Amino acid sequence: MTDLSSDAPTGAVESRLADLGRTLPSVAAPVGAYAPAVVSGRWAWTSGQLPFVDGALPATGKVGVTVDPATAQDLAATSALNALAAIKSVIGDLDRVVRVVKVVGFVASDPSFTGQPQVLNGASDLIGALFVDAGVHARSAVGVAVLPMDSPVEVELVVEFD
Amino acid sequence: MTDLSSDAPTGAVESRLADLGRTLPSVAAPVGAYAPAVVSGRWAWTSGQLPFVDGALPATGKVGVTVDPATAQDLAATSALNALAAIKSVIGDLDRVVRVVKVVGFVASDPSFTGQPQVLNGASDLIGALFVDAGVHARSAVGVAVLPMDSPVEVELVVEFD
Amino acid sequence: MTDLSSDAPTGAVESRLADLGRTLPSVAAPVGAYAPAVVSGRWAWTSGQLPFVDGALPATGKVGVTVDPATAQDLAATSALNALAAIKSVIGDLDRVVRVVKVVGFVASDPSFTGQPQVLNGASDLIGALFVDAGVHARSAVGVAVLPMDSPVEVELVVEFD
Repeated sequence: MTDLSSDAPTGAVESRLADLGRTLPSVAAPVGAYAPAVVSGRWAWTSGQLPFVDGALPATGKVGVTVDPATAQDLAATSALNALAAIKSVIGDLDRVVRVVKVVGFVASDPSFTGQPQVLNGASDLIGALFVDAGVHARSAVGVAVLPMDSPVEVELVVEFD
Repeated sequence: MTDLSSDAPTGAVESRLADLGRTLPSVAAPVGAYAPAVVSGRWAWTSGQLPFVDGALPATGKVGVTVDPATAQDLAATSALNALAAIKSVIGDLDRVVRVVKVVGFVASDPSFTGQPQVLNGASDLIGALFVDAGVHARSAVGVAVLPMDSPVEVELVVEFD
Repeated sequence: MTDLSSDAPTGAVESRLADLGRTLPSVAAPVGAYAPAVVSGRWAWTSGQLPFVDGALPATGKVGVTVDPATAQDLAATSALNALAAIKSVIGDLDRVVRVVKVVGFVASDPSFTGQPQVLNGASDLIGALFVDAGVHARSAVGVAVLPMDSPVEVELVVEFD
């Protein structure tokens, strides 16, 4: 693993993140034919991000059964943070983001759990706090059968930068 | 809620919609860090749209169990209509659409139900009738465990406009 | 059905495919309001592709129950191949691809099966072998309840071309 992130905030977005008491995590270097994020034109697209913290999932299982919605909301924020770290690794500075275009959030859900939007608010609220006007995004929240490594959530982003 | 749509058809696309006996619904104003649709470059991306009619879901549950496929097909058309209303709210006039690029449709499905494409034809056929050549789109149809508010379907769009 | 593909490799990408002992399948012509792939700006987006071989699915069912992971990995490669054939049908030559931007892979999964990334490596490894540097993509792997026609996998692509 190569740490592609720096330790100190490098701009307004990371300063706001620091004000929230959080820092951008490191990004694992690509391990195969796919990467945490790629650039195409003025857009960066991330891979689906799991809520890894220091290389481990803080919780596993299906929301509504073994994972409660409040925990899942935190995990969605963590996934979004990992996605932003992936974006920084390909564009260099999160202050270059002019529009968070799309957030897709998959929530591993018991078929009786219907609160996917509340779970995804963990990601959306963080993005809104960090990017303000540029953070207003389109979003899809979906409840799925199961996610990689039994993660409760997975979040992917498309952002426009200049 | 602020009604961002107008009542009268404003162009060829909405006239065709009127010919089908339908009108574009109103769009709820953004309620948080995300919006019904956003513009990035020459593209508009919608949030995942549920088949709300006047603020309520006409049906809930999983297709193949509590919701029959024909009903789900209608709900997919309603979701697509809501998505188009969201697009109009950010580009002003649906006649500006030069290409419906992608339709993703999630169908809350019993694991034994495999007719997601037929359900999504409700959305695709409406888009084809309204946009004709510009309406020929790429599409993914997926059967998922559960959707927000126990909605049977959710549809998202990406369109190119000029 | 109209065969939109040619039989002989037409460039470096298809030559590499031939070296792997594979050929690009034919693409069924559009049957309705949607198409196997569409072009918008410098990008081509595919529909969700099932692992059809000569018009039939080699296997059906949920991975982790009736379909083993190794078989599913092969099916993911086949789905990716069908997606590439769809892209060729709209851009003419796969050598025009300058970036495989995004791969989304849906795996019909028993809720206990968490190896979606390994399944999707079937698609990613093939794309990496064919496009080399231009094949490094963002990817999301998701486990869903059920897919059209009970397919075990479905793969969609976004690529940039010039």
